[in-house]
Amino acid sequence: MLTFVLETDSRQPLYQQLYTHIKKEIQEGNIKPGTKLPSKRKLSTYLNLSQNTVQAAYIQLIEEGYISSVERKGFYVSDIIPIKTNTRDKKPTILKKSTKDRSILYDFSIHGVDFSSFPFSTWRKLMREVINEYDKELLIPCDSFGYYRLRHALASYLYHSRGVICNENQIIISSGTEYLFQILFQLFKDDTIYGIENPGYEKLNQMFNANRAKFTTIDIDKDGMPLSQVYKSGANILCITPAHQFPTGEIMPIKRRMQLLDWAKEQKNRYIVEDDYDSEFKYSGKPIPALQGLDHNEKVIYMGSFSKSLSPTIRLSYMVLPQHLLNIYKEDLSYILCPVPMMDQKILCRFIEEGYFERHLNKMRSIYRKKRELLIKSIRQLDCDIEILGADAGLHLLIKVNNNMSESQLIEEAYKAGVKVYGISKYYTKPLLDKSPPLIILGYATLTDNEIIKAVKLLHNAWF
Amino acid sequence: MLTFVLETDSRQPLYQQLYTHIKKEIQEGNIKPGTKLPSKRKLSTYLNLSQNTVQAAYIQLIEEGYISSVERKGFYVSDIIPIKTNTRDKKPTILKKSTKDRSILYDFSIHGVDFSSFPFSTWRKLMREVINEYDKELLIPCDSFGYYRLRHALASYLYHSRGVICNENQIIISSGTEYLFQILFQLFKDDTIYGIENPGYEKLNQMFNANRAKFTTIDIDKDGMPLSQVYKSGANILCITPAHQFPTGEIMPIKRRMQLLDWAKEQKNRYIVEDDYDSEFKYSGKPIPALQGLDHNEKVIYMGSFSKSLSPTIRLSYMVLPQHLLNIYKEDLSYILCPVPMMDQKILCRFIEEGYFERHLNKMRSIYRKKRELLIKSIRQLDCDIEILGADAGLHLLIKVNNNMSESQLIEEAYKAGVKVYGISKYYTKPLLDKSPPLIILGYATLTDNEIIKAVKLLHNAWF
Repeated sequence: MLTFVLETDSRQPLYQQLYTHIKKEIQEGNIKPGTKLPSKRKLSTYLNLSQNTVQAAYIQLIEEGYISSVERKGFYVSDIIPIKTNTRDKKPTILKKSTKDRSILYDFSIHGVDFSSFPFSTWRKLMREVINEYDKELLIPCDSFGYYRLRHALASYLYHSRGVICNENQIIISSGTEYLFQILFQLFKDDTIYGIENPGYEKLNQMFNANRAKFTTIDIDKDGMPLSQVYKSGANILCITPAHQFPTGEIMPIKRRMQLLDWAKEQKNRYIVEDDYDSEFKYSGKPIPALQGLDHNEKVIYMGSFSKSLSPTIRLSYMVLPQHLLNIYKEDLSYILCPVPMMDQKILCRFIEEGYFERHLNKMRSIYRKKRELLIKSIRQLDCDIEILGADAGLHLLIKVNNNMSESQLIEEAYKAGVKVYGISKYYTKPLLDKSPPLIILGYATLTDNEIIKAVKLLHNAWF
Repeated sequence: MLTFVLETDSRQPLYQQLYTHIKKEIQEGNIKPGTKLPSKRKLSTYLNLSQNTVQAAYIQLIEEGYISSVERKGFYVSDIIPIKTNTRDKKPTILKKSTKDRSILYDFSIHGVDFSSFPFSTWRKLMREVINEYDKELLIPCDSFGYYRLRHALASYLYHSRGVICNENQIIISSGTEYLFQILFQLFKDDTIYGIENPGYEKLNQMFNANRAKFTTIDIDKDGMPLSQVYKSGANILCITPAHQFPTGEIMPIKRRMQLLDWAKEQKNRYIVEDDYDSEFKYSGKPIPALQGLDHNEKVIYMGSFSKSLSPTIRLSYMVLPQHLLNIYKEDLSYILCPVPMMDQKILCRFIEEGYFERHLNKMRSIYRKKRELLIKSIRQLDCDIEILGADAGLHLLIKVNNNMSESQLIEEAYKAGVKVYGISKYYTKPLLDKSPPLIILGYATLTDNEIIKAVKLLHNAWF
């Protein structure tokens, strides 16, 4: 007979104590497989428990497969393999926060936005509005394209501010460039060869490799990918950043745009992926319309996000697909659900619809323009040989430092002075052969005016 | 000389009007490539404009590549390809909302949750708290694993409620099962063969196909995948739902669990993906611990989400990776950013930390248990031959309708009566040879008590 000491004053119910005891006996092999357990009545009398308590324990054991019930016969121990005692530490380790590099005073990071300008109060208001009423829409999954009303608002915004010609049915909402590319990897055939800019986003290489997607890098000139290089590369899908090339900061002129569109038109499997990265920020002249708006042959896949215009933590990106690709998406990839929570889609939708987004962009354009001007002015005021490069757009610029230091020396000396700067060479897939002075990238979005002034002084002392 | 009529009372600035006019002339080929434009001074005098206005227009044209400036010489029209006039409709189409199927009164959908029980007021409160203070953390991207504090809260929750043994550094937060699998497709080699349950999630097939991942389906018996079938299949990664098999609703007994773990142990490249789908809802006995907790050999990849426990629109899923896979993830997939907005991660984190989640689960367990009991009672009260199957868990059950109708007839007749039900056969990858009465799946989460009672009556009239 099974003999256990059950604690009546324990917080654990009696049936659970009984269940745990019997389970342990079975696991440790003390009760052998095939053994018949005492009937509910017998065990309850023996242990002075109610029959219900024994029954609850037995049901639990049956459900977990430790015992089985044979009709009109009784309960038998199953033929299980005993579990070894777990010797691992069962408690989650204690949380340690990563320690920040304290020696860095100013970081010219190219990631991030101006933290003090996020529209917290508007966002709070919209959040409240969105969740204030009982709203079934917040709980019913939207389709794989994303919230239709947000897509509608986006189509209108993209048309008016970027010259993108599409309707909301062509827009797919996702969580970031990498998630949009995941869709492309599934849409396009295995023999696709992607052509990426050199220099360019360092993450693209890694992404293509991890996804076993074939790709080739194409050396850009001042205007972007040269047509001769494009033909030579064998790529059939070009991934480009015409609005503000990363990292060189150049804007692709209309002539090159037309050439690339013509190249795409020549063959059925050719496409251009236009990453309209930080296109919202152009400080002189009118914004340059997207390549997508110039395309008449369903050859451009347009991508954008709110990472620069709002915050990288918003995690909302979108892509405009040509109609014939859309049909494949609907047909083959219907298993995909939009990864963005409904709440966030609704908040962002109101943010755009009610005009807040436009006002926010105008405000940020002015803030970033001033930061950029301050940075340029601070550098020019120094009596030293630094050239400034990169079009009057975006959230970073480049400097050519003519002091005979190598790129790594420049970074190193800046670091010693407490300033983090970034070299351009890490964005190249091949080592730079160019012997001209190295280029340093300065992102200015996250720094305050005061920090920019102080950081430039430190850089001057470190470099000259 | 360029002659344009500029409207001084227009809302468009003069420089933009001038820019537009010149651009148009160039695009239409009226000013030929290579033509020298008038100097700023000359044009401003001629058109009676300020030199600044002309300069602004010229800068814009330079930036877009229509003209170029040659030092000490002047401005020249670039060698561009003229754009054809865009004949497409430029305005986004007017939004049409999809019309819902009005003939359906009650839908026994297996998707969705009880809408009236979402903790709106708590969520609202937590939202307010999270965004009430200026919080830099809301704007700085978290790492590819997700918000560390949420991972910590999850590790503790998973240990206490599901017996999952891990620390927060093993948890990766993403947006849904498909996004977690995308990571696995990148982590595992090309020769990986996934074994999936038959019957099982219909979306898995599509997902594996779209990602060109090799897979094979394994026919399950009452306890899950039989070992003999597993060996025969050639699969090296099994994707299973031991807590509550979808769609059969069965719980995998301990013996089968141990067998599968032993199978995995035999070879280095073998793994088990445990989708702990709707495991939070078990109505009798203690919750059955996850397979992951029984594993001592880093062989189980544990997946879970908040789709059933909170809402499918929350879009937050997680996976626990064994340490050696974690190392590969860190090394090769650092380009991935966590797709979940920081705001949502922080809200959910508080929701768990402050005990709301546990209380919500307890409440929902009781609500769903009552719905389940009501559904079973309503069916049993009918004087007709319907068997009820599926363990006492989850958000759906199965019925075997013994009225000689085929599955499609049952669905069809129910539909005519205004009730949507789902057959099990669509979850099979091969046609069912079984001649026994068909199985119908009834999801009850989204229906109210009243709706359940009425729907069952309609089903009875339709079927008997």
